[in-house]
Amino acid sequence: MNTPVISKSQIKLIRSLHQKKYRDEHGLYLAEGIKIVQELLTAYSDMIYLLVATEAAAKTIQAGILPTHQEWVLISDTELNRISTLTTPPGIMAVVKKPSYPLPETLPTPSLNLVLDGIRDPGNLGTIIRLADWFGMEHLFCSPDTVECFNPKVVQASMGALFRAQMHYTHLPEYLSQLQANQTVHCYGTALDGHNLYDIQLESPALIVMGSEANGLSDMVRSHCQQNLLIPNYGQTVTRSESLNVAIAAGIFCAEFRRQLGK
Amino acid sequence: MNTPVISKSQIKLIRSLHQKKYRDEHGLYLAEGIKIVQELLTAYSDMIYLLVATEAAAKTIQAGILPTHQEWVLISDTELNRISTLTTPPGIMAVVKKPSYPLPETLPTPSLNLVLDGIRDPGNLGTIIRLADWFGMEHLFCSPDTVECFNPKVVQASMGALFRAQMHYTHLPEYLSQLQANQTVHCYGTALDGHNLYDIQLESPALIVMGSEANGLSDMVRSHCQQNLLIPNYGQTVTRSESLNVAIAAGIFCAEFRRQLGK
Repeated sequence: MNTPVISKSQIKLIRSLHQKKYRDEHGLYLAEGIKIVQELLTAYSDMIYLLVATEAAAKTIQAGILPTHQEWVLISDTELNRISTLTTPPGIMAVVKKPSYPLPETLPTPSLNLVLDGIRDPGNLGTIIRLADWFGMEHLFCSPDTVECFNPKVVQASMGALFRAQMHYTHLPEYLSQLQANQTVHCYGTALDGHNLYDIQLESPALIVMGSEANGLSDMVRSHCQQNLLIPNYGQTVTRSESLNVAIAAGIFCAEFRRQLGK
Repeated sequence: MNTPVISKSQIKLIRSLHQKKYRDEHGLYLAEGIKIVQELLTAYSDMIYLLVATEAAAKTIQAGILPTHQEWVLISDTELNRISTLTTPPGIMAVVKKPSYPLPETLPTPSLNLVLDGIRDPGNLGTIIRLADWFGMEHLFCSPDTVECFNPKVVQASMGALFRAQMHYTHLPEYLSQLQANQTVHCYGTALDGHNLYDIQLESPALIVMGSEANGLSDMVRSHCQQNLLIPNYGQTVTRSESLNVAIAAGIFCAEFRRQLGK
């Protein structure tokens, strides 16, 4: 079902989705690349258009990657270059409907969940969404000043994990108060003056709270954490790095929680 | 000891250092930003020039950050923008002599070391160097096709850890053969069909071998690994991410080795 035309107004709409303002207005976002589109097709996300450039189309059809049941639009390489968010456009782009998940009133037991307080770097957020998917985290709760998860750089770095993630942007102190009123949850902060992660018996349902590298956790969010954890370092006598990248720290926390708590 | 002039030939030299070819030719590289320059001043690296732009200089002197014992060159903001490798130049740049470390014939016992086989992304390499520093890894051995560690993006992402890292670029299979002939070392590969990391009793001196996300380990390097390890995932019935980012995986491996082997 090949529809070989794309209108000027569609191109205009797609180009507008490079900006958060218009992603919010239209409730749509962009995802590019064969790997990411394949992930999209197996996930629940609603695709609005699938655009494929001439050269990429020939290859993907030959490789049997492009699904025959999916309607797609063949566009010229020049057109795709104009609407791509990437410096080297991969030749295939989807326009996707933003999902929306209701904030859960309670968390499943057992479950692991992430709380992200002011994570500004899109690459870091995308990498965190990807590892959260690997470790089967249930929900990701983000402060309003965390970078938007539909930012093209986040979508790319998540490698398709975004399509399966339950992302929530909310006022964290308020939400954590409500949650703690409804249920006993274990809220673990992360801080350089915290307890050694490996000396603590971790419990579920858990919320692992990560702050930005520059500012750490905000005081309001920190006040909801029953315990602060630290990944121990192992320097010699020489000076060593002051901290870990926030996505690396999130990966180590999630791995240790899963090791201790099992499936 | 403020020397307020910079010659045209110096500017030409510095601009040439944006390219690997000239970094190799001159044995020099660039490092930018106050945090990174501070790390440089406490490390062993040889600094050739320290260049500070007018506005940044006023601030750093006021904050007592710019060392008085260090000779530095005041340059105009326009000049610094011309020689910076960054889109938003932070106003301070160092020209640094590349260090060179002899390949060790044996590894200390106990020790943890990293082997990087074809890591192409500069951000990933920088992040790995930073976490290796945090976890007190002794040596980092890189294949010749791993991105050069003096690439400006690697320097930035390492957040100063590069100045303390013992980096070696070498033909890995040949070096691992020599090392294994001299000494019993424990060489752990990382692979999606490997043993669960948490079911294995890890031993030292250890080499943790990481391959690229796209290609994994090369066969020649893999043949030197006595055991392949996997970080277990925990998906539900839905499809989940196929893999972790290579820097995230390196972080989780290093943390678990340190947890098991202690200091």
